[in-house]
Amino acid sequence: MDTQALAEQIARGERRALARAITLVESGRADHRAAATRLLEALETDRQAIRIGLSGTPGVGKSTFIEAFGSMLTGQGLKVAVLAVDPSSARSGGSILGDKTRMEKLSRDPNAFIRPSPAQSQLGGVARRTREVIRLCEAAGYDVVLIETVGVGQSETMVAEMADLFVLLLAPAGGDELQGVKRGIMEIADLILVNKADGELQAAANRTCADYAGALRLLRKRPQDPEGFPKALTVSAVTGAGLSGAWEEMQALTEWRRETDHWTARRQAQARHWFEEEVRQGLLARLTADPDARARMAELGAAVARGDTSPAMAAEEMLESLRG
Amino acid sequence: MDTQALAEQIARGERRALARAITLVESGRADHRAAATRLLEALETDRQAIRIGLSGTPGVGKSTFIEAFGSMLTGQGLKVAVLAVDPSSARSGGSILGDKTRMEKLSRDPNAFIRPSPAQSQLGGVARRTREVIRLCEAAGYDVVLIETVGVGQSETMVAEMADLFVLLLAPAGGDELQGVKRGIMEIADLILVNKADGELQAAANRTCADYAGALRLLRKRPQDPEGFPKALTVSAVTGAGLSGAWEEMQALTEWRRETDHWTARRQAQARHWFEEEVRQGLLARLTADPDARARMAELGAAVARGDTSPAMAAEEMLESLRG
Repeated sequence: MDTQALAEQIARGERRALARAITLVESGRADHRAAATRLLEALETDRQAIRIGLSGTPGVGKSTFIEAFGSMLTGQGLKVAVLAVDPSSARSGGSILGDKTRMEKLSRDPNAFIRPSPAQSQLGGVARRTREVIRLCEAAGYDVVLIETVGVGQSETMVAEMADLFVLLLAPAGGDELQGVKRGIMEIADLILVNKADGELQAAANRTCADYAGALRLLRKRPQDPEGFPKALTVSAVTGAGLSGAWEEMQALTEWRRETDHWTARRQAQARHWFEEEVRQGLLARLTADPDARARMAELGAAVARGDTSPAMAAEEMLESLRG
Repeated sequence: MDTQALAEQIARGERRALARAITLVESGRADHRAAATRLLEALETDRQAIRIGLSGTPGVGKSTFIEAFGSMLTGQGLKVAVLAVDPSSARSGGSILGDKTRMEKLSRDPNAFIRPSPAQSQLGGVARRTREVIRLCEAAGYDVVLIETVGVGQSETMVAEMADLFVLLLAPAGGDELQGVKRGIMEIADLILVNKADGELQAAANRTCADYAGALRLLRKRPQDPEGFPKALTVSAVTGAGLSGAWEEMQALTEWRRETDHWTARRQAQARHWFEEEVRQGLLARLTADPDARARMAELGAAVARGDTSPAMAAEEMLESLRG
């Protein structure tokens, strides 16, 4: 495969080339993987999209928000890519964003590109493919890459680690209590958006937003934040209220981080982390890729299960055989 | 070091030998590790304690429960070991059970052995050491090994994976709602104990217990459970009410699983899993143990951060150099 030519087509913004490239990086075949690695190496590197991680549990109106927010951005002449990371897609068989009709307008928009979560059994595999798809979209000239996830398990942390900004979308709370937002999530959020600030829920949304703003003030200030960040705002994906304000805040934060070099430092740390993770995954893959190693693992595992040897001793034997 | 002699001393129930062996398996030194592996191989294998995983968030009265429950067991002539797994001990510097005065009676009991959580930076390291300490306690003739953990992150799953039974300790809830118990935890619990079923909280404890019993009935029946399990019971660590009943249920469950071979199957699966995990950790350790590999990782990581190469390409180069 001529990966150089493909890289050039992507750089010219050819949609079909982008789709082909994504299929390539999502493939499990060894020759595809080799081609994907060459392709990633050949990509344009002087284009930087704003990578926005977006998390919200089902029911907060995530699709409606992305539809409205994404359409607003394309209306301003920006190119928007929407990627999904769904840790449960392997089990459920389905995937979020699989049904593009959830974002009817955006999916027909020539300046928008929507890609469902890759079907993968392991979160690590999803992470790698998503990171590579982000790079492809960036090289294809997308200005904003939205990476959405459901707030389950480790997926939020994972998405935050591949984004420049992390946005948490919430619904107005019923009572006067904070919703079951994990403390860890509060600490990685750059912006909290309380959705559904319209009609009957307006007052509840304002209260919820004030609660979160208060909670955010209790957290220690992070070096990568200018004064006043992280922020909590209300938005309405239905009426569009607050959406342009939210985008202005994201731009202001981006601007500040670019000027203070936090932007670059974060991207560098992420790239390094991604490299290290690839090495770790590659090492572990040897245990299953090589038939001899796989057979030896099975054999020693059976001996351990029978009690013929201890797990520690069997592991040492296995590691020794891998060394030889 | 004469690991054979040490194994024999442990088998005779010599406390000091057990303590020395634990220090050995908890050590990070390479020669200690080698000795620990030999020791584990030399241990008696025909003794099987009941390994009970116990989880409960701070405030449910875990220490008081262990003190009362453990003393009841030693009072019946049983030998009891209490181990702690604290995923946060590395960060906080302290460790649960570090302060033995929390279990004043049990810590002076000649038939009880209490060991705080090993200080470790990684949950994987804690897991390995704890598993090995369990084996040591078992070989030393302890009849019951209690492995306690705070219900944080992955630590509960980890403890469940090294235990024969998993017990979840809860406090009476204020309202009529289930407490913030993660669904995943409900699914691994064999027994739910609602503590503080005494005095003013008796009624609330009964209600909470009934709520959980109802919730447990909604879960799919697991093959490893006899009729009626998992169960929810009320106990009071302060008055001792329900403790012997809880122990009887644990024994009944153990008995049933032994007869139906689920007991053995679970232990075999755990041993196999432990072996595989050891192999994985051992492989990854090569990245940091060898100075050349470490230097190469740092070098390639810097190149990736500078944007000179892609993470995927650099990872391939690194894996190639490890292969050579």
